[in-house]
Amino acid sequence: MSEAAQTLDGWYCLHDFRSIDWSAWKLLTNEERQEALQEFNGLLAKWTTTEAEEKGSHAVYSIVGQKADFMMMILRPTMDELNQIELEFNKTKLAEFTIPTYSYVSVVELSNYLAGESNEDPYQNPHVRARLYPKLPQSQYACFYPMDKRRQGNDNWYSLSMDERRELMKSHGLIGRSYAGKVKQIITGSVGFDDYEWGVTLFSDDVLQFKKLVYEMRFDEVSARYGEFGAFFVGTHLDADKLQPFFEI
Amino acid sequence: MSEAAQTLDGWYCLHDFRSIDWSAWKLLTNEERQEALQEFNGLLAKWTTTEAEEKGSHAVYSIVGQKADFMMMILRPTMDELNQIELEFNKTKLAEFTIPTYSYVSVVELSNYLAGESNEDPYQNPHVRARLYPKLPQSQYACFYPMDKRRQGNDNWYSLSMDERRELMKSHGLIGRSYAGKVKQIITGSVGFDDYEWGVTLFSDDVLQFKKLVYEMRFDEVSARYGEFGAFFVGTHLDADKLQPFFEI
Amino acid sequence: MSEAAQTLDGWYCLHDFRSIDWSAWKLLTNEERQEALQEFNGLLAKWTTTEAEEKGSHAVYSIVGQKADFMMMILRPTMDELNQIELEFNKTKLAEFTIPTYSYVSVVELSNYLAGESNEDPYQNPHVRARLYPKLPQSQYACFYPMDKRRQGNDNWYSLSMDERRELMKSHGLIGRSYAGKVKQIITGSVGFDDYEWGVTLFSDDVLQFKKLVYEMRFDEVSARYGEFGAFFVGTHLDADKLQPFFEI
Amino acid sequence: MSEAAQTLDGWYCLHDFRSIDWSAWKLLTNEERQEALQEFNGLLAKWTTTEAEEKGSHAVYSIVGQKADFMMMILRPTMDELNQIELEFNKTKLAEFTIPTYSYVSVVELSNYLAGESNEDPYQNPHVRARLYPKLPQSQYACFYPMDKRRQGNDNWYSLSMDERRELMKSHGLIGRSYAGKVKQIITGSVGFDDYEWGVTLFSDDVLQFKKLVYEMRFDEVSARYGEFGAFFVGTHLDADKLQPFFEI
Amino acid sequence: MSEAAQTLDGWYCLHDFRSIDWSAWKLLTNEERQEALQEFNGLLAKWTTTEAEEKGSHAVYSIVGQKADFMMMILRPTMDELNQIELEFNKTKLAEFTIPTYSYVSVVELSNYLAGESNEDPYQNPHVRARLYPKLPQSQYACFYPMDKRRQGNDNWYSLSMDERRELMKSHGLIGRSYAGKVKQIITGSVGFDDYEWGVTLFSDDVLQFKKLVYEMRFDEVSARYGEFGAFFVGTHLDADKLQPFFEI
Repeated sequence: MSEAAQTLDGWYCLHDFRSIDWSAWKLLTNEERQEALQEFNGLLAKWTTTEAEEKGSHAVYSIVGQKADFMMMILRPTMDELNQIELEFNKTKLAEFTIPTYSYVSVVELSNYLAGESNEDPYQNPHVRARLYPKLPQSQYACFYPMDKRRQGNDNWYSLSMDERRELMKSHGLIGRSYAGKVKQIITGSVGFDDYEWGVTLFSDDVLQFKKLVYEMRFDEVSARYGEFGAFFVGTHLDADKLQPFFEI
Repeated sequence: MSEAAQTLDGWYCLHDFRSIDWSAWKLLTNEERQEALQEFNGLLAKWTTTEAEEKGSHAVYSIVGQKADFMMMILRPTMDELNQIELEFNKTKLAEFTIPTYSYVSVVELSNYLAGESNEDPYQNPHVRARLYPKLPQSQYACFYPMDKRRQGNDNWYSLSMDERRELMKSHGLIGRSYAGKVKQIITGSVGFDDYEWGVTLFSDDVLQFKKLVYEMRFDEVSARYGEFGAFFVGTHLDADKLQPFFEI
Repeated sequence: MSEAAQTLDGWYCLHDFRSIDWSAWKLLTNEERQEALQEFNGLLAKWTTTEAEEKGSHAVYSIVGQKADFMMMILRPTMDELNQIELEFNKTKLAEFTIPTYSYVSVVELSNYLAGESNEDPYQNPHVRARLYPKLPQSQYACFYPMDKRRQGNDNWYSLSMDERRELMKSHGLIGRSYAGKVKQIITGSVGFDDYEWGVTLFSDDVLQFKKLVYEMRFDEVSARYGEFGAFFVGTHLDADKLQPFFEI
Repeated sequence: MSEAAQTLDGWYCLHDFRSIDWSAWKLLTNEERQEALQEFNGLLAKWTTTEAEEKGSHAVYSIVGQKADFMMMILRPTMDELNQIELEFNKTKLAEFTIPTYSYVSVVELSNYLAGESNEDPYQNPHVRARLYPKLPQSQYACFYPMDKRRQGNDNWYSLSMDERRELMKSHGLIGRSYAGKVKQIITGSVGFDDYEWGVTLFSDDVLQFKKLVYEMRFDEVSARYGEFGAFFVGTHLDADKLQPFFEI
Repeated sequence: MSEAAQTLDGWYCLHDFRSIDWSAWKLLTNEERQEALQEFNGLLAKWTTTEAEEKGSHAVYSIVGQKADFMMMILRPTMDELNQIELEFNKTKLAEFTIPTYSYVSVVELSNYLAGESNEDPYQNPHVRARLYPKLPQSQYACFYPMDKRRQGNDNWYSLSMDERRELMKSHGLIGRSYAGKVKQIITGSVGFDDYEWGVTLFSDDVLQFKKLVYEMRFDEVSARYGEFGAFFVGTHLDADKLQPFFEI
């Protein structure tokens, strides 16, 4: 058996993708639509309060293409809160006009591949805490995709030694770091929670940087030989100002 | 031909995952909803009696994410009882407001890989019986996933000798045992019953332990080279107290 | 080119899996439901007459889990009759309350791997005839799954010589034979008819024997290296007595 | 780069598979159903005229199993005509009671693997023309499946030399030829048009010959090592006489 | 790590495939249908203005087969505009009668494999600009498919050196160039945006050239060993004149 990687785990995370049933939505009176949006805005306001209290974070993005119309990404200290939020949303009026198209359950994760040796409790380190319990950036664009490390014939990530994996991750991390300031990346682990092993959420004000980053990484051995990728979702920020016109008929 | 593994088989098991059609559910009057819940509670009460008589066990969990809204896991001495329970549930009022999203048919299984030699009938051994006919723990969280042993090129589990498999399973079992007290695991066999070879159901009061356990195991050769995993479901316990608010509009 | 296997082919076979739309079924009056069942019982009576005349056979099973609510397995001398029966069922009242979930088209098949040399016409041999034109057992349980022989890298069944395949099938057949009296197996060939190469239907009064048989075979080279399996369906017999309560609301 | 195969290309081909929404169809009055069928018969009459003028061909088959209820196979000199026919059918009354389940877009194709050297224009050769612009046989049974040539590890058809491919195709063609008089085969190419590289449509008055042909070929290297097969559809001829009872309630 | 390819990136691109719900469409009065089409024509007119101002381009094609009824391909300088256009279309009356069947999100891309060395800014080069910000040809036919470069065992594109890849792409490009004047090809990159790495859109007035081009390329090592292809869509141009009859009942 290879030495298992250790992880630090932060807030639990739900990505919830929805399409809108526009035909049904249009059948409502303008007043009914406003009521539904007000109720949803109430939820968002509550989430914003939670974020202000540093007990979670969230972001809403409009998704390009038919995979979904919008995505809610929600971070909370417990799985139960995610379950509760999902239930609360499902009972709203607005939810009646949405069709679930994809979701992802995970937890913010830092691996020990790139960590230095230390005697201090990393959970007390403010830099680590900022990454485990992040306030989601309100960037103009977001990108989400789930991924696995490959276990196939000679390309079996989990059969590599810790040293080999650490070496590979270091080179991989260098690419990521070269996009610092351009792309913010949040890795969430989902082994035991969802179908892939990780979710990757990228944020940027320049959507092209998603493509540049992911493509450059693909030439790196970690992705080239060991990366298995699920569906990719890309979208634009639905801030409070944009929600109203987004749903307006 | 490699020597086949022998199994001890206990109660038959049905995992039944359902989404709720909230829009339709909301169209009912409060009274109608209460009636539907009362009928469902009647079913649950019957199942609880069965459990008290040690003729089966069951658990209900709310599932996080869009794969399902809740899951019923039911153990019974015969396949016919599972079929009957499923039929009974399908005819309830509540079932009209649920959408089947996944199910799994299996039987509680212990393999002989880790068994010592013995002359006694294992089916009479109380420790074995407790595992074959388990009372499901009412832990705060549950995790379910189906899995296969890989048969692919050089990574063919079923071509290994019994000794090789036993050796590998021993090391694998050690990881599992190190989570004793933190995670309870129920293995159900489904060869000939459903699409994967096994179902794994994990119970814990700390949801993070699911991730830690499954991830650590992935570095072990049994998973790294020979594990093929299906969908993962994770959820929180829907005990009697929580059912009412869960369905409340 | 490897020497092709020769087959004896008997009755054509349709496996027809259906779910029931219980919500719609419940909307009928009791009288309407009885009418629908009477019409269906009329069909079954016709099929039973055909069976008595040794011009076909059929069996109906309730399926466990969400893959289907029931399955009709029908054997007839011609493909046209299967097509006609399917059409007739589709036009019944009951069919309006069923949702097709899976079907399989094949023909009862015996291969020449295990056949001895003989000068007689096997189609005149009563033992062979009994297997090509079988009366389906009304066992308590049935199991169905489709399968392929693998053609992948070094594990290519169709590139093996006839002698190698015969040797492998012999050992495989020995396992099957050790379940004689416990499990009855009907192999139907579907090359050119449906997506897999064979359908396997197992019958038994002890559902656990399905698991034991299929699991033991998996360690045999024929399955271990060359077996590719589709979905597995398992169910309990819906004899005439059980049909009424099954559909009763 | 390996030498590319050359093709002769004939009529464009649409396979259009439909299920029937019997519940809705039954809701029509008998008169409405007759009107819908008359309109459809009008379409068929037009197609028959086109066939008589040797400007296309078509065939309608009832499909066995749940994959579809019937299939229309249509050949025309241009892709535009196929698109137009599809649009015309979609606007008929009957189409409102059908559910599209599968379709395939291709063009009748002859490859140069088995062609002799010649100075004449093959498109002027009457034997070639009869194969490129075929009148579809009105056989009792038809079988359709799409397929690819494999490109996987050491089994990469497209990396073989022209001579190797020609040699393999020759042996493959011999099997096909041994079924002359029993099975008529129409190969349509779909590279760039649909998801597989070819569609294969077989016609016969003995449905068992489909199985015998495809199974025998599977032992041939072209299929054994290089064949990747999609879904298989089999059905019985829906000639003008049978259409009326087929749709009758 | 292999040297990553560099790309030039132009306009963002949305391929939006829709089926038409003809049954519902027919339920409208002729007047309502005309209103819906007028609204859609208004959108098209706006897009045409954008195209005239060289701030984007678009094309509408009718798709052959059941994968879709029509496809809109839209190019714009920003991802936000695509998102906005999609939203605007989704809110139209016509959209209520369409069913989303597939979409693809990408950006027009030129790779540096075939680029010469140069000191000038390629984004200022008029030849490059014409390819990055193309006016879509109004050819009679279009073909779309997404694709990946393979990363599998010994066939791992991303593990090849830049020189190897450049050599392979050169030979590949020669095939493409031999179709100049017959097929116009637009490559859009989708790494980080959608499920495959590239989208390929071909335009021609001779639909057979799509098949010839893609088939010939398949024998080239770049496709033979390294190409993984998604679904293929082919269709005929729906110019302004044809839209009216296309939607006419």
